[in-house]
Amino acid sequence: MNVELKANERIDDLQYKGFKIIQDSGGFCFGVDAVLLANFTEVRKGARVLDLGTGTGIIAILLAAKTEAGSIVGLEIQPHMAEMAQRSVILNNLQEKLEIVCGDLKNAPEGFGLSTFDNVVCNPPYMNAGGGLLNPCDSKAISRHEIACTLEDIIVTGAKLLVPGGKMSIIHKPERLVDIICLMRLNKLEPKRIRFVHPSPGKKPGMALIEAARGGNSCVNVLEPLFVYDDSGNYSREIGEIYSRDRQV
Amino acid sequence: MNVELKANERIDDLQYKGFKIIQDSGGFCFGVDAVLLANFTEVRKGARVLDLGTGTGIIAILLAAKTEAGSIVGLEIQPHMAEMAQRSVILNNLQEKLEIVCGDLKNAPEGFGLSTFDNVVCNPPYMNAGGGLLNPCDSKAISRHEIACTLEDIIVTGAKLLVPGGKMSIIHKPERLVDIICLMRLNKLEPKRIRFVHPSPGKKPGMALIEAARGGNSCVNVLEPLFVYDDSGNYSREIGEIYSRDRQV
Repeated sequence: MNVELKANERIDDLQYKGFKIIQDSGGFCFGVDAVLLANFTEVRKGARVLDLGTGTGIIAILLAAKTEAGSIVGLEIQPHMAEMAQRSVILNNLQEKLEIVCGDLKNAPEGFGLSTFDNVVCNPPYMNAGGGLLNPCDSKAISRHEIACTLEDIIVTGAKLLVPGGKMSIIHKPERLVDIICLMRLNKLEPKRIRFVHPSPGKKPGMALIEAARGGNSCVNVLEPLFVYDDSGNYSREIGEIYSRDRQV
Repeated sequence: MNVELKANERIDDLQYKGFKIIQDSGGFCFGVDAVLLANFTEVRKGARVLDLGTGTGIIAILLAAKTEAGSIVGLEIQPHMAEMAQRSVILNNLQEKLEIVCGDLKNAPEGFGLSTFDNVVCNPPYMNAGGGLLNPCDSKAISRHEIACTLEDIIVTGAKLLVPGGKMSIIHKPERLVDIICLMRLNKLEPKRIRFVHPSPGKKPGMALIEAARGGNSCVNVLEPLFVYDDSGNYSREIGEIYSRDRQV
């Protein structure tokens, strides 16, 4: 399916069964964190999945490509990003499985209804809004900083939208681990799986993958570390596998 | 200094500057976790330190040997263990620096006074009390299971005993990470450093080292992983260093 590109836009190959994505060279482009989160998320056959703050649509498209989810919604607050993501849906011929919705995640429980998703995923802005140095109209700033929503907004929203037993998975900086864990438990989302992502075996983690179950019991599985590079400075074997494998549980 | 040994007791060399410890061959003997916790704990010169549930006294003795703490108290609920630990204090000629006290940690804030320690360390029982299969008079069971105290007792007690800015450090199973983090924050102990201990680089962690500051801000430093063995199956270089190095900040 051919789609029109706007100025500065390009089509990137996802190196998985021919799937592609449209990105704005001057805007926020997806990183390894999005790919890792899509891989970390366990999606059952037929599951209804929501990606909060889908941006380019990368996570939603990877989940549509790699899992047997029944339906996927990518929610994005910025109209021009949602429109671009929608063109990526068409580009990949995923219209029947993946829907892009433009809206504020804080209104999502009202819009979609309570307890309506089996999985909620989110690759949130990592940085605090800070002291007024940011332009709140800047698309990159909205993707990177807590301008349009806070960590608490995301977790509260996920808790409302998940069915009992449904899973929320997010990726964030390890520095926020305590905030994430405490907010999750406060909202009856019990962290069940945590995996830290390290640049290499001797380094501290740069990212944390966290999955919580709505109403789960209090026992968390801290997984083996995920190393991006091996000791020789090459991509680790696992990273190579993540960039190509199917995700299904 | 010579001390008398009881039946089944033996003297083990701590392989550090001639320090030794008395252990009961039929009772609970210290493991690598105690050594790792003593190493993880950052003790400033002149600090007042409390080891909750000191058992054989291993952590208190290691801190007395490896740091410039001003004074150290080892609190132990089991009289025969406290008495054995006291003999290890004499064996090492540490009477001026290290005091063993027999008592229940739940009474410690009353006994020692609120806000009286710079560091509180604890290597707690890892296992739940379970369903009545344990003998509550069994010394090994008290060291391993939450019979005499719960995780919450330990954290509540530590929070009361620490000065503002004082540090609590514990080692526990990673499965309890969420419980530990949430109980700490609830009691105004903010987790500041977390280090996971893995059997080897490709394995999930078997232990978690956690340090919290009384009244700290919400930003946690997840450190590089600590591997007990390297990929060749030998003790890692760091483990070798931990068993010998001084601890001072």
